[in-house]
Amino acid sequence: MSLLPPQIQKTIEEFSKLPGIGPKSAERLTFHLLRSSKASPENLGKALSDLKVELKYCKHCQMVTLQEECLICADSARDHATILVVENPLDVIAFERSGFKGVYHVLHGVLSPIDGMGPEQLKLRELTDRCEKGKIQEVIVATNPDVEGEATASFIRERLKTKVKKITRLAHGLPMGADIEFADQITLKEAIEGRRGL
Amino acid sequence: MSLLPPQIQKTIEEFSKLPGIGPKSAERLTFHLLRSSKASPENLGKALSDLKVELKYCKHCQMVTLQEECLICADSARDHATILVVENPLDVIAFERSGFKGVYHVLHGVLSPIDGMGPEQLKLRELTDRCEKGKIQEVIVATNPDVEGEATASFIRERLKTKVKKITRLAHGLPMGADIEFADQITLKEAIEGRRGL
Repeated sequence: MSLLPPQIQKTIEEFSKLPGIGPKSAERLTFHLLRSSKASPENLGKALSDLKVELKYCKHCQMVTLQEECLICADSARDHATILVVENPLDVIAFERSGFKGVYHVLHGVLSPIDGMGPEQLKLRELTDRCEKGKIQEVIVATNPDVEGEATASFIRERLKTKVKKITRLAHGLPMGADIEFADQITLKEAIEGRRGL
Repeated sequence: MSLLPPQIQKTIEEFSKLPGIGPKSAERLTFHLLRSSKASPENLGKALSDLKVELKYCKHCQMVTLQEECLICADSARDHATILVVENPLDVIAFERSGFKGVYHVLHGVLSPIDGMGPEQLKLRELTDRCEKGKIQEVIVATNPDVEGEATASFIRERLKTKVKKITRLAHGLPMGADIEFADQITLKEAIEGRRGL
């Protein structure tokens, strides 16, 4: 016999499936939504139910979009010969703020056998197809500088090295505003190896 | 111009309204739901949309329920003359595990003027009504031992002292399994004041 009505239990259970939300947080969120005047379960429920409706992935870069082609790929003023390969759509937003003027390719994940993410789960075939069409000058691999990201970058280099002239990786080194005293040893080693003329 | 489709932006916005979820977590949760095989936006969306449908509050204790009366209030084997007053429905679940055999009253919040929670926002009138019917022997106030909980407990004592013979508060002291060395000074003070004969 459970004291909580089934719709409350169901909501707690679904919230618990999200990353970083344990059973206690899920309970707190559910009861917050029942009481709050600002957040409402109906609005969040509606937004989630609509989330995948009409959502498309750009036929070139696999970015989330509402059309066949995303706004970036449709823009003829951009450099379509330079592809920046990123893990997920939010990385595109971040690079757009940095003023990058080429185009993107969104992998929708990284290689991670433990999470069931192999090459087939990523948008790698689509990337290979784009490179085989032959007009690509440079592929910049911008996966995160962690174990999975580095493994994915190596995999992409092996797969594309016969197809694209130039394959590069983002520079590693000190982030702007960092304090050398507190930087980790691997970052400092990378910063020395990647040093440039003043 | 935004690069993210409106349904994604809307979901991020609604997630951000929840306690402990900032804009970055909201983005992460939204994209997790788009990709995950375990959690699905449709299931969570459905659960949330159904959350308030058919949900009732027990006419006696204000616990969430599906009937007019909750399972605890409907149980004639329980002690209906002892009311344990709690802040929210999850507290009822916690006390049920402890083996309490009386009945409950759920306030659905605590007095907190900064969050717009005054006496009218709580289920205090319903508690007063129950006590005025005259069969209540004891009201145990089990609000949390924090500023808002203590203020709410004082408020309840003032309001009920002419109506109920016995109004008590949960004991304060060391939790079971605690280490005295690491206990805070207020808890230790309360533990000494509330000492009992061995």
